[in-house]
Amino acid sequence: MKHLLSMHQLSNDMIFSLLEKTECMKKGEGKTLQGSFAANLFLEPSTRTKQSFYVAEKRLGMEVLDVEAERSSVLKGESLYDSVRTLEALGADVLAIRQSERGALSKIAEHSEVSIINAGDGTGEHPTQSLLDLYTIYEEFGGFKDLTVTIAGDIKHSRVARSNAYALKQLGADIQFSAPEQWRETEGDYVSMEEAVETSDVLMLLRIQRERHENQDDIGSYLTMYGLTKEREKCMKERAIIMHPAPVNRGVEIDSSLVECSKSRIFKQMKNGVFMRMAIIDELMEGKQNEDHKRFSLGQGICATM
Amino acid sequence: MKHLLSMHQLSNDMIFSLLEKTECMKKGEGKTLQGSFAANLFLEPSTRTKQSFYVAEKRLGMEVLDVEAERSSVLKGESLYDSVRTLEALGADVLAIRQSERGALSKIAEHSEVSIINAGDGTGEHPTQSLLDLYTIYEEFGGFKDLTVTIAGDIKHSRVARSNAYALKQLGADIQFSAPEQWRETEGDYVSMEEAVETSDVLMLLRIQRERHENQDDIGSYLTMYGLTKEREKCMKERAIIMHPAPVNRGVEIDSSLVECSKSRIFKQMKNGVFMRMAIIDELMEGKQNEDHKRFSLGQGICATM
Amino acid sequence: MKHLLSMHQLSNDMIFSLLEKTECMKKGEGKTLQGSFAANLFLEPSTRTKQSFYVAEKRLGMEVLDVEAERSSVLKGESLYDSVRTLEALGADVLAIRQSERGALSKIAEHSEVSIINAGDGTGEHPTQSLLDLYTIYEEFGGFKDLTVTIAGDIKHSRVARSNAYALKQLGADIQFSAPEQWRETEGDYVSMEEAVETSDVLMLLRIQRERHENQDDIGSYLTMYGLTKEREKCMKERAIIMHPAPVNRGVEIDSSLVECSKSRIFKQMKNGVFMRMAIIDELMEGKQNEDHKRFSLGQGICATM
Repeated sequence: MKHLLSMHQLSNDMIFSLLEKTECMKKGEGKTLQGSFAANLFLEPSTRTKQSFYVAEKRLGMEVLDVEAERSSVLKGESLYDSVRTLEALGADVLAIRQSERGALSKIAEHSEVSIINAGDGTGEHPTQSLLDLYTIYEEFGGFKDLTVTIAGDIKHSRVARSNAYALKQLGADIQFSAPEQWRETEGDYVSMEEAVETSDVLMLLRIQRERHENQDDIGSYLTMYGLTKEREKCMKERAIIMHPAPVNRGVEIDSSLVECSKSRIFKQMKNGVFMRMAIIDELMEGKQNEDHKRFSLGQGICATM
Repeated sequence: MKHLLSMHQLSNDMIFSLLEKTECMKKGEGKTLQGSFAANLFLEPSTRTKQSFYVAEKRLGMEVLDVEAERSSVLKGESLYDSVRTLEALGADVLAIRQSERGALSKIAEHSEVSIINAGDGTGEHPTQSLLDLYTIYEEFGGFKDLTVTIAGDIKHSRVARSNAYALKQLGADIQFSAPEQWRETEGDYVSMEEAVETSDVLMLLRIQRERHENQDDIGSYLTMYGLTKEREKCMKERAIIMHPAPVNRGVEIDSSLVECSKSRIFKQMKNGVFMRMAIIDELMEGKQNEDHKRFSLGQGICATM
Repeated sequence: MKHLLSMHQLSNDMIFSLLEKTECMKKGEGKTLQGSFAANLFLEPSTRTKQSFYVAEKRLGMEVLDVEAERSSVLKGESLYDSVRTLEALGADVLAIRQSERGALSKIAEHSEVSIINAGDGTGEHPTQSLLDLYTIYEEFGGFKDLTVTIAGDIKHSRVARSNAYALKQLGADIQFSAPEQWRETEGDYVSMEEAVETSDVLMLLRIQRERHENQDDIGSYLTMYGLTKEREKCMKERAIIMHPAPVNRGVEIDSSLVECSKSRIFKQMKNGVFMRMAIIDELMEGKQNEDHKRFSLGQGICATM
């Protein structure tokens, strides 16, 4: 695997291999990438994902170059392609990119020596978030077969919903959705939140992307109509877990008092995110170490004559 | 000591222990925190304090995650509490926070595993600045007993004045103040600047916080009325020193030519600030190393079955 | 060499010594500055140069403190001098500064213990860019004698043009310019772009600084009149190379399809920039290691009595 752009590129075997590698990272094995460089190119704001990549890269012993929208040459009219080629020229070995154009990275990745990780492309995919979600479920249940997973919220605009539904189905889980009418996709099984809490082993709440919605009034009544209230939580299965990609809108997707309740894995997801990203980067870098060595010994035209 | 939130939590013994640890840091002993993570969450601008923490953390061998107001999820409506919990989940071991609400950190600290350092809370306290000031005095005079210290400037709105007056008094120094009528607190001995320069062993000038004052006209005449002019400096005791938390408003609190005069310890304070912050972080981290090790080996539920 | 402020301070011997040191860096020799601190003070935006310095400093094993305009105390009215003295007090060993006032650094450098590198001063000089350009030529041709170098574009406002023309002439190259009437300097040989491509061994294109020009209409027709079109490229000598300091305005200075053509060294320049900056910093730090050691053991007044 040279790039990680989409969950669709991963077979079940590849996913399980990443889950196991994440486990190793969590046990403190890894840290072999000293001397390597990661660059994080975030052209859309994302505190949490960027921080998670940063910590993951640092824990692997890498140096990190953070590039942000407001400061980047992209604002000087430079194309994303030139930015990638520049970071490659500066010595980046791996590149985590968040940008708004769905699918924009695949063409660039074709021409890149640097390994590219899709850190969210608009309403497209966000595979590292999906993988950390998968790991959190795996850690809890030891597998995916026959688990009932409900994804609840704005299915239509959610990167996470898209990637997770695909991957979980492939891994043998039963997927259902819960969403207000206007946020549904045409396909998929939709259930009420009442049914969702009663049947789910995993309840994945999505973040309300306020900035992506026109009708701000709906947000006020969202919790009681479609969110996880204290009453609904009581109807959940004993071993069921609550997930959310964060940051949580307390009192919207979930009652504030439930954010850290015993069923919640919300902060655990963040913790796992670091280890999963370490695993992904390690996977991409494997076999690259030697290549790298070559790269930094190039241009020996003069050496020979010195 | 798990958190450093206020000078009021420190006994004289604890202060002297930190002063001695600072001394060790200055001699190059320390650098034991490799593998640990510090996060600096600055929700109010403060170039200097943030830089000082950053350098201190790096000199200790830590990795550093810088989070700033404009980029932080706090702007997405996330509470300070959630930001702290997130940084904890990401793996932060120590967290330096600057934010504007006086006393806001104590409640959060109660629920935090991560060690929290108050890096300035509005008009409240700024204990790391106080401690570096104490160290600078200690380095000069070897102690505090019977030193006459004048704090001059906007006593009313100053974090530094508040914390320093408290700590210095507790350590046996005689504290007096010098300030325009409107910037005085009800308590405390107030003297004219003329008397201050003649009687002080330590003259601590405060920065005029232009943004916190309504009447901008006063600033023009501040130097001649209340600041340290060249004439006043000549009346200072032979071994007396001049201090200022910086950045200096040259020509306002102090005549520009005096900023680096032989009595000035202004740049030395900055230098000392790095070593004092190293000492504080080292103190907070002591005994945490083992805890940490545990933290990153959690979640072994699967390991056992692999 | 304590500071690098201008190409004019470098003899040919010093330049060749830096070129050879760059070669060593490229071969992976270096990385000796562990424990040293670099600060990058960029008061004008410059993604690329700042990133290049950052990567160079990190590859040398240094810690890096990035200070940017928008966040810096300079905005609080602090002078550049005080910022430099502050970073020095915080422990910086080397300081790369980009700011807009031509020649402003020489006075500050006189009073600084920290080594200062001019990373671009308005329309003045940009010596690290010049040196990486020289290295790219040296790597290609093994020397400079009798090479014909054309610098093309906005000669009048270009730091790079100024520094490069001076240094290349000194090293024995023949320099000519190609530019629209309004962007010419009074001195120098000017040729048409047609003549330039036929005669040059090195064609150095300059970036159109859109923000520095009043007439935006000219930009549209720039390529066909003064830029490197596909037709013109065909007339270049077989071994000739194309250079550009980047970021490229594709379709303005150069046809987009030529940016990565076989003659182009544009991305190679960026790659070389890292190694050249490593060489420069290493040069400045040489002999400083011991000094440093002293610096961090200062203030032993108390130690003796403890």
